[in-house]
Amino acid sequence: MNLSEIETPAILIDLDRMERNLRRAAEYAREHDLRLRPHTKTHKIPALGRRQIESGAAGLTVAKVGEAEVMLASETPDLLVAYPIIGRSKLERLMQVARRARVTVALDSAVAARQLSDAAREAQTAIAVLAEVDVGLGRVGVRPGEELEALIRAIERLPWLSFEGLDFYPGHIRGAGEDSRQEIEKLSETVGSMLAGLKRAGLEPKIVSGGSTPTLFHSHLVAGVNEIRPGTYIFNDRNTAAAGACSFGDCAATILVTVVSTARPGQIIIDGGSKTFSSDRHGAAGEATFGHFAGAPEAVFHKMNEEHGYVDVRRAGRDFSVGDRLRVIPNHICVAMNLHERVYGIRGETVETVWTVEGRGKLQ
Amino acid sequence: MNLSEIETPAILIDLDRMERNLRRAAEYAREHDLRLRPHTKTHKIPALGRRQIESGAAGLTVAKVGEAEVMLASETPDLLVAYPIIGRSKLERLMQVARRARVTVALDSAVAARQLSDAAREAQTAIAVLAEVDVGLGRVGVRPGEELEALIRAIERLPWLSFEGLDFYPGHIRGAGEDSRQEIEKLSETVGSMLAGLKRAGLEPKIVSGGSTPTLFHSHLVAGVNEIRPGTYIFNDRNTAAAGACSFGDCAATILVTVVSTARPGQIIIDGGSKTFSSDRHGAAGEATFGHFAGAPEAVFHKMNEEHGYVDVRRAGRDFSVGDRLRVIPNHICVAMNLHERVYGIRGETVETVWTVEGRGKLQ
Repeated sequence: MNLSEIETPAILIDLDRMERNLRRAAEYAREHDLRLRPHTKTHKIPALGRRQIESGAAGLTVAKVGEAEVMLASETPDLLVAYPIIGRSKLERLMQVARRARVTVALDSAVAARQLSDAAREAQTAIAVLAEVDVGLGRVGVRPGEELEALIRAIERLPWLSFEGLDFYPGHIRGAGEDSRQEIEKLSETVGSMLAGLKRAGLEPKIVSGGSTPTLFHSHLVAGVNEIRPGTYIFNDRNTAAAGACSFGDCAATILVTVVSTARPGQIIIDGGSKTFSSDRHGAAGEATFGHFAGAPEAVFHKMNEEHGYVDVRRAGRDFSVGDRLRVIPNHICVAMNLHERVYGIRGETVETVWTVEGRGKLQ
Repeated sequence: MNLSEIETPAILIDLDRMERNLRRAAEYAREHDLRLRPHTKTHKIPALGRRQIESGAAGLTVAKVGEAEVMLASETPDLLVAYPIIGRSKLERLMQVARRARVTVALDSAVAARQLSDAAREAQTAIAVLAEVDVGLGRVGVRPGEELEALIRAIERLPWLSFEGLDFYPGHIRGAGEDSRQEIEKLSETVGSMLAGLKRAGLEPKIVSGGSTPTLFHSHLVAGVNEIRPGTYIFNDRNTAAAGACSFGDCAATILVTVVSTARPGQIIIDGGSKTFSSDRHGAAGEATFGHFAGAPEAVFHKMNEEHGYVDVRRAGRDFSVGDRLRVIPNHICVAMNLHERVYGIRGETVETVWTVEGRGKLQ
């Protein structure tokens, strides 16, 4: 199959770039003796989870039980569910997963730990637990110090749970350039003093799991971190490039679109909007744009409805006609992948693979 | 099945409210002798398309060939594809649809008309065409006057196409209150003088199709309009309520979520973010929020990631615990429906129906 036969809109994965991205992260992890447990929310495809394992990952990360169920097909030996699982029926499904792969759950409350312990006891299946710590994002996670110690003690007291360590998500650090160096140092201080405090309290986490895509290649600078869970790095996207963590040339995923209207002078309408790209923004609110046109970087994708993308082409330096096909690097590839039934793995003009996005829409 | 057995996050449809919304629009259309051809992009469920037909709609509208294929199961006699269809393989699929229902296509270029005519000739299947006009949104559509006349003449010259009329989408009119009265008057003038011009040129469209959900109940005030294509009205959402076109009590769709973390004082994290709600905003950019908590209107849903919703509950006037279940009216129900595999039709605490969202993700 050739690129020209693909109906638009469609996500294309440049396989050479993707393989380079996988290799680079695996080599970095090996070099710095970091366990690599990639977050599969970015691709949601078991075959790509398999590739991550084959290229050196020790396990895989998911956000939901439904994603864990799908990702079993990757034959990963180890699955981290990096999300508190609340409610009986989800926990019962999780225990089914735990019969086929080693399962670890990250959580931040005694309620979640107790529910997990009850389910594990009923299923007679031991579950590993990471205590989630907030290191600055202000989302989930307890505060380092007394709160963290209390959570760990609660986990340790509960039957069928084994406390394995800590995890955190440094999502508040958005840049990867020189200017983020200070933030990385501050993170390292926070984590270092947290670990020292735990040691004084007689608690020694085996796993200290951190690492987002923007901070990926700085992970060895954070005291005590021995595991990383990057997601976006497999494809990269416009946000990753804007953070300085990759170049546009490292972006493996583009969205192929067709020009469907040129009725308004200076504007083209493309057949992808919020149902194709998601409405995740980039840039300051007032000047938000929705993607980077690889072949026309001056085209401004400034507005979208569900099925329509509005592109200002007054400064694009070329003409466009109805039927033209263009490739766009999306702001945020994870949410875009979730909108597509299948994606196309290409080399040059050749479609080498068609993958079904099996983890798409697994909300529960 | 009871509401308490549903795993979150999940979309709930209050059937009493939905049926009232359907009835109200059908009665309005009958009263003013307007043809009702609802846009099914809001629900994407053939069974609900069927209900719309049974409650008085003359046909259904879709945005994509993939949606048309799905919506055939509603047994609608008539399908409007309100989007220019570009490219051979999509047009071949459209011709297959046209063997099972009468198909009309809205388009705004001679290129799109010619491609459609070629496909219709090959399939020996006549296709009705609406010429798309821009009445102020600045998206698709030619300008009234010479451009419109040229498009109509191009359609009329092409074999296997029959020119049926005009369509437009007044998406630039966001309000439904008194302050939008002037905009409706201006729209009526635009459409009226456009129709007068066409008449002088010897062109008389049979169908003049307009109408969004916010302008729905003002459609009879627009000169010459004889068809409406509202979508959101079946459920309504926070944007519809904010436009003054309905009250929160008319919102049939809510998203059921669970509190998964209360680790940070004054904040709860719910198990729905951009993968559950979409990241479509509401309000001015700086103060964007993502949903209305029916049971806690002072809770502020101010930020989201893919699987996490951040809710500021400092002024909510109640306490929240991990495991609490809450119902949220989303900003934009159409994009949220597109993210869910199935939705639950409820009356009170009872789940009466579970629908698969069969048109979900039909991007091509």
